Amino acid sequence: MLPAFEHARQLLKQLPGLGHRSAERLALHLLVERPERLAPLLDALREAAARLHRCPRCGNICESELCALCADTRRDARRLCVVEQIPDLLALERAGAHDGHYHVLHGKLSPMQGIGPAQLNLATLAQRLASGGVGELILALSNDIEGEATCHYIMDTCIAAHPGIAVTRIGFGIPSGSGLTYADPATLKNAISARRQYGAA
Amino acid sequence: MLPAFEHARQLLKQLPGLGHRSAERLALHLLVERPERLAPLLDALREAAARLHRCPRCGNICESELCALCADTRRDARRLCVVEQIPDLLALERAGAHDGHYHVLHGKLSPMQGIGPAQLNLATLAQRLASGGVGELILALSNDIEGEATCHYIMDTCIAAHPGIAVTRIGFGIPSGSGLTYADPATLKNAISARRQYGAA
Repeated sequence: MLPAFEHARQLLKQLPGLGHRSAERLALHLLVERPERLAPLLDALREAAARLHRCPRCGNICESELCALCADTRRDARRLCVVEQIPDLLALERAGAHDGHYHVLHGKLSPMQGIGPAQLNLATLAQRLASGGVGELILALSNDIEGEATCHYIMDTCIAAHPGIAVTRIGFGIPSGSGLTYADPATLKNAISARRQYGAA
Repeated sequence: MLPAFEHARQLLKQLPGLGHRSAERLALHLLVERPERLAPLLDALREAAARLHRCPRCGNICESELCALCADTRRDARRLCVVEQIPDLLALERAGAHDGHYHVLHGKLSPMQGIGPAQLNLATLAQRLASGGVGELILALSNDIEGEATCHYIMDTCIAAHPGIAVTRIGFGIPSGSGLTYADPATLKNAISARRQYGAA
């Protein structure tokens, strides 16, 4: 009876983080309760879609030639941090955890989901490493099988030819502010195997 | 550095249920990760906005002359259920809790938020009651001060002239499947004062 409404709700429901009820709530909000908000939102999304592109160097979002991070000469270009997706980069930036450069893969290897090396932003990573200037490659990928496989692939294909580049992987273990009681077995095993000399940096 | 992206994210963040992170996630999804989803969504929302209007009788959403519920002759037009907003109506319909007609106020009286009688869909409610045919008015409004005030206002303005119409208010108490331990004091008081003869219907 409401085909246009149902269609809009269906498409909203496909978006990440939105379920049946929250998609309905959003659709009702934009179409019935606060319809004056719809046109500005559509305009803003269309405008952003027209302006945004991936930074040709690192894959971050970008509205100019290079992204703000690649263009920032104060950042340490020798340390290159590989992340799966832009939200990971934004999380590291919010935390102030890394002041070098980034490389966004836009995914991780996942044969189950049909994601192979060709689907990832790997060609430019190899170019960046080949062009020199990178002293450390920090693999900030997920702590799961796909993340592990992606690290292995990068080691085999991008790093093998550049033995001078140090490769590190981010630490795994108990999250900050959390105790051992609620940690899952894999995290506890990670934490034990990642143990360090007490008092070390 | 990303003015168009920030603008889109700001507008998404104003929508109900979306916070800073979820708005960012949605914007990145639609603008970077799955940009092919953006145009169909914008089209669907624009199309729905063009087709949808409020049912002139009850205030429900509607793509035709009357909404599906008002047009359904199998429903009991004698029982009229007043709700604050369309999601309330949809929730009652999903529950199969009411098979009469509805009237959507599109809000509740709230002097603090500048919502007075003129902002609510009250004029057509008075007309519906005056035109006869309603035997029971079910006030399905929130269990809070604004809901209470709105019930009082409807009694004083819409019902006073029609003493033949029975007015009921939905029950308040312990929700289904829930115990007393986690109920707040106001709910417990409601539940005690709404006690009924055990074994009664």
